[in-house]
This record gives sequence, C-alpha cells and structure tokens, in this order.
Amino acid sequence: MSDRKIVLEKVDQAVQILQEKDVDVWLTFVRETSHMHDPSLSLILSPVLQVTWHSAFLIGRNGQRIAIVGRYDTDNIVQTGAYPEVIGYDQSIRQPLVDVLDRLDPECIAINYSENDSAADGLTHGMWTQLFRLLEGTPYAARFVSAEDIIAALRGRKTKSEVERVKGAIKTTLDIFGEVTRFLRPGLRETDIRDFMYDRLADRELDTAWEMEFCPIVNAHPNSPIGHGAPGDNRAERGHTLQIDFGVTQDGFVSDLQRMWYFLDQGETRPPAEVQKAFDAVRGAILSAAAVLKPGALGWEVDQAARSYLVKAGYPEYQHATGHHVGRTVHDGASLLGPRWERYGDTPNMEVEAGNIFTLELGAHVPNRGYISLEEDVFVTPNGIEWLSTPQTELWCI
Amino acid sequence: MSDRKIVLEKVDQAVQILQEKDVDVWLTFVRETSHMHDPSLSLILSPVLQVTWHSAFLIGRNGQRIAIVGRYDTDNIVQTGAYPEVIGYDQSIRQPLVDVLDRLDPECIAINYSENDSAADGLTHGMWTQLFRLLEGTPYAARFVSAEDIIAALRGRKTKSEVERVKGAIKTTLDIFGEVTRFLRPGLRETDIRDFMYDRLADRELDTAWEMEFCPIVNAHPNSPIGHGAPGDNRAERGHTLQIDFGVTQDGFVSDLQRMWYFLDQGETRPPAEVQKAFDAVRGAILSAAAVLKPGALGWEVDQAARSYLVKAGYPEYQHATGHHVGRTVHDGASLLGPRWERYGDTPNMEVEAGNIFTLELGAHVPNRGYISLEEDVFVTPNGIEWLSTPQTELWCI
Repeated sequence: MSDRKIVLEKVDQAVQILQEKDVDVWLTFVRETSHMHDPSLSLILSPVLQVTWHSAFLIGRNGQRIAIVGRYDTDNIVQTGAYPEVIGYDQSIRQPLVDVLDRLDPECIAINYSENDSAADGLTHGMWTQLFRLLEGTPYAARFVSAEDIIAALRGRKTKSEVERVKGAIKTTLDIFGEVTRFLRPGLRETDIRDFMYDRLADRELDTAWEMEFCPIVNAHPNSPIGHGAPGDNRAERGHTLQIDFGVTQDGFVSDLQRMWYFLDQGETRPPAEVQKAFDAVRGAILSAAAVLKPGALGWEVDQAARSYLVKAGYPEYQHATGHHVGRTVHDGASLLGPRWERYGDTPNMEVEAGNIFTLELGAHVPNRGYISLEEDVFVTPNGIEWLSTPQTELWCI
Repeated sequence: MSDRKIVLEKVDQAVQILQEKDVDVWLTFVRETSHMHDPSLSLILSPVLQVTWHSAFLIGRNGQRIAIVGRYDTDNIVQTGAYPEVIGYDQSIRQPLVDVLDRLDPECIAINYSENDSAADGLTHGMWTQLFRLLEGTPYAARFVSAEDIIAALRGRKTKSEVERVKGAIKTTLDIFGEVTRFLRPGLRETDIRDFMYDRLADRELDTAWEMEFCPIVNAHPNSPIGHGAPGDNRAERGHTLQIDFGVTQDGFVSDLQRMWYFLDQGETRPPAEVQKAFDAVRGAILSAAAVLKPGALGWEVDQAARSYLVKAGYPEYQHATGHHVGRTVHDGASLLGPRWERYGDTPNMEVEAGNIFTLELGAHVPNRGYISLEEDVFVTPNGIEWLSTPQTELWCI
C-alpha cells in the first residue's frame, strides 16, 4: 500500500470521473511546485515529488495519461508509473503542449482552478495568463472549464488503499484513547491529559490530525468552552464528564474522533440519569444520521436527521455541521453533512457518494455535569455505511 | 533574532520599497493557506502561521499595515505584531476590503501575482476572479499591477537578522566540512562520504539546504558526472581530487558551499602542478567576480568577469551561472549572476542590490585528476562585498 499505488488508483479513478462528467481532458498546469504546490498533485502525481519548470499533467477520458515536464524532471515522473507518456522539453513547453492537445483534440478541457474550492484552485494567476499566451492561435483556451467537480469527486471518493490508511489512523487513535482511559484520575488538568496524549503521539512518531494547539480538544469541566478551545487549567472531577476530540496523521491520512468518560461520584456505580439520557440522545442522533447516510442523500438531509432527533430529545441545536470528509486532511472533499446555513454555501446541497468517508459528530451540554459529545468515522458503501471506528455505545466510567 | 523580529524588519523594508517603486499599496490576497501558501507570507506574516478564510494583507507607502481576516484568525494575526490594524469579519471580506481601499484611495495597487517569478505568484486564478468580483463597482481593480518588483526586492535585500541566520547556516556547514576532512581516507565511496555527512546533520537535527538526494553532491573521481548528480560508487583515490557541494537549512535559512580536497600520492608533499594550476584559476575567477560585485552591477557583468578569467587561464566555459541568491532557499531572489543565455530569461540583466547574498561558484575539470570547483557565499555591501564564508585559499590535502 505505497504512495505510488494510491496515485495509480487515483489516476484510474480520474479517468472514470471524466467519463461520468463528460469532460475530455483534465489539465493540471504547474511550475516550481516547491513554491506553490497544487493540492491535486498529491492525488495524481505524488505527495512529495516536486517539478520545477512549467509542467502539464493531462488525463483523458479514454485513459490517456500524459506528462509534459522539463528535461531534468522526466526521470522522476516516469518512475511514478502514473504517466505512460512523459514528454521532456528543454526550451519551452509550448510546442509539446500544443502537439498533445492537437492529438487529443478535446472539446472540453478541465483546468486546475476554482473560485469555490481552494483544494481545486492550484493554478496561479500568473500561470493562467501564461497558459493563454502559450495557446494563442489555437482553439483550446476557449474550451476551458473549471476542474472543481472532477477534483471534488476524486478527492471525496476514497480508493481501497485510502480507506485502509484512514482505518490505520483510526485504530491508532482508539489505541491512544484506551491508554488515556488507563491514565485518567480525578484532579488531572485538561493540559495534563493533553500532554499525556502528546507523549503517546511522540512514542509513535506521529503528528496530530489538525493544528496541534487544538488537537486534542479536552473538555473536563461544565464550564470549559465548547467546540474549538485549547485545553485549559480545568481539572477532571468526580461527578463530571470528560470529552476529548482528537485525531492522528499516519501515513499521510487522518482520523477525527470524540470519546466520552464519566468520573463516578462516591457511591455511584453508573452515571446519573441526566448524563445517561444525554449520552443516549447523542448516540441516537448519530445513529439517525447513519441510517440515512447513503449515496444520493443530500448533505443537509443527513444533518437534519441527526439534528431533529437531538432537538426532539429535548436538547438545543448544535452550532456546527453533523459531518465532514476525512482523508488526507480533516476536510478532504467538497460536500458537507451540514445545515443550509449561509456560512456553508452550497456544500450541504451536494450529494453523498459511495466511497466518501465522513465524520458523524454532535453533542449536548448537561448543566453541572459537562459536555457530552461523540464523533465516529464512517465509510459510505453503495447501500449505506460501514463504521470505520468501533462506535462508543456506553460512557467510559472512571 | 526570532521569526517575529524578521517579519517586522521585512514589513518595514516593504514600506521603503513601495516608496522607491512609487507604488501606493501592496495587497496580498489569500485563503486556506494550508492548501496553497503564498511564498511571500513567510516574509510579511510568518513562516508557519496559516489563515483560513479570504484574507487581505495591505502594506502602504506611508507605513500603513492592515490585515483583514476571518474572525477566528484575528488573534493570531494581532500576535505577529506586524499589522497594527487587524480587521476581523464574519460573513464576507467585501465590505471591510472596500472600506480600507476607500480610506487609502491608492492610485497604484500591487497584487501578489507574477508571470515571470513563481516566488511572487501566490495568487490563485480562482482568487483573482473573486477579487475582481469583490471590487465590482469600485475603481480599484483598474489600478492593479503585479507586485513582482516589490517582492523581488524584498526577498533579495536581506535584513540584518536574515544575514545572521545565513551566517549561522554557513558556520555549521564549514564545521561539517572540517569533520569531513578528519574522516577522509582513500578508498571511501562517494556514498560513504555522503552518509557520514547525513550523520553529522542528524547529530544537529538539521535538514539539507536542497533536495536531500542531491545534497551533498560528491565528486570523488575524474569520471564522476559533474554538476547535479547524486553520489555514486566511485571511490576516493590517491592522486585524485574530491569535490563536495553542500549546504544546510538552519533556523529557516540555508547555506550553499563547495569545498575541495586532494589525496596526495605516494611521495607527494603537495598537489601536482596541473591540479594546483586549476585550483588557482578557479580561485582567481571567483576573486574576479567578487571584485566587480557591488550594487548597480548587472548580473551578467559579474558572471562575465569570472567566466572570461577562467577561459583566459585556458579552461573551458562552465555550463551554469556564476552565482545565485541564498536566503530562505538556494534561489531566494529574482536576479542571477549568469550569462545572457536564453534559458535564464531576463534575470542576468537585473541589477545587484545592497543586501543581496549570492553564491560565487565555478569549476574546471583536470583530466585523470578530477573536478575542481569552489563556491563561496558573499553579502553585497554598499561598496562591494563581505565574505560570509571563510574562502578556501588552498587545496586541503589528505
């Protein structure tokens, strides 16, 4: 399951997506990628390889895969195995590029820019201007469209190898949560728990899944700020819940999970009723989303299923989306399982697709007890979902 | 000498450059910098800080420094200290951006894109389109020019703190060369020497200055491929030269140096005449370049001084430029001390400026002995140069 294998899978997948979207050629045009690295290159070339001079990567609906690169980069590109035809040039990319386009004669050419999606907007403006200049006197620039739909589909639909890598990151995360359970005791500060988790990452030489300052998020007290706050000085106490939001980056892919603990008070053998009720409501809301999450569902429909369940159970609406893509990053795809709020733009109106990996995450606050929130990671199959994380079905009591 | 201090120095310097270039405002427009990171942000914001939503960094000729960023990024930007005015927004950057431009009313606005210089081409095409849309109904889009001249000057003219960091990287490199001298003996393979140097980097937890596969370059044999080849199986032998091209990345800045050894043959007490003659010619050519390297000199004039010296001494012309910028990377500036060959474009016609740091590097091949090449790093002062590396004046004999 090498990087190379994943790239070969993604390039094959891109061909299928071009056929589906009725686009003849997808052209990714870049230079000096050590300065500005088009995020799509991780999908169709390599997560680490750089090119220097003007370079064009063309994928065609009939399976063509052609790279045009500076002479000194040709060997590296050949070695990826993703481009059976690698054309090196010395002076200018113009003639080889025009020759290839003449040969393919595409009616519709998708280009690596997007107003809406920064992950699909890898073409710089200087390069856009140069591309028009290079193609002067040809009909091709008039056939350009944005490649955003292609890139969104390619990024969002995980291949088998990509799913395996996310699973690996999830397994490690659950292992670390298990180590946290054995470490926990009343009196620990949120920062103590964070530091323990950082040590467990260091043991494994892994990085956090998102910005370290906010990974993990640790809420150990009813007064801890909810959502995206960094761990603070609040201490875990008997009678309170503990919530942790955490993920790791492993082999270039990430996890994103939330887990819940409860510190039994003196004489308690299980959590008090109001804590258990909130946990059950949160768990039930996640199951409601999971029940409607399948190819063709719209993001807001999935969100609505979970949101209305929790509200009917008597809790306030949470102020975030129910789910987002997970893959190379914690937002690795264009669509969102979120409400149709203005700040989410068009993303909740997009369709769920087979192969997507989403989080399902939501929570409720219990006065004087703490925040109760869960997050699972799920894979969308042709008929529904597969849980990638072993769901938490009971509060873990300390 | 923190990153923060360097950014404050660079932003002050940018104000001076705007006055000199007669530009009213430099606008750097970015979003989701974890996807596409405008290289100029390392100069005017931070080498590591990311912003998420549409963000605008405006520097004005009268010293104005204004950042307009998403609400959740404001604290981070305030903490840089580089922008006394930080405007946070929730919905859209349009109104705060138009308000600031109305207030400044610039006649000439430099934008972060460039056809010629990838280091100045941080604006994506999707963002360019959005910028025009955001400014519809205002006069400002008609006042856009490329910021490439400003960015080239800002990147090329090193501040005191930047020079100190390059000096640090050079000192470490010379230390490692010293350790190499003590390690060398006949029979070592080029790859043995490379591995020894990698260990010395690992001791110090430092990275190479450029792609690890080609850093160091080690030429231990007359038949080793010259220039950019990776170390191979050739072994150091008595009667041959050894040449190494190497640099380190330290505190975000790099060095780039070449050093020379000679393996004395049985009975020899000094290098043979043809080796010494070539070394002296190479050293003399570098001194010839250094003698004409000063503010206002054109890149090709400096190259010509060295090149013609070496050719007059009876050696063939080397197939590369005599010098390039050094700073955050081994090409940290727009100009080049190179010949007016087509592949170098306009870069040899640019003027040397005070504050530039250049390499001076060139070599000659001695049949049956090996490659002889030196590289020093120099700082351009108002009147000439200061050597940042202690120049090698004699072959180091083993």
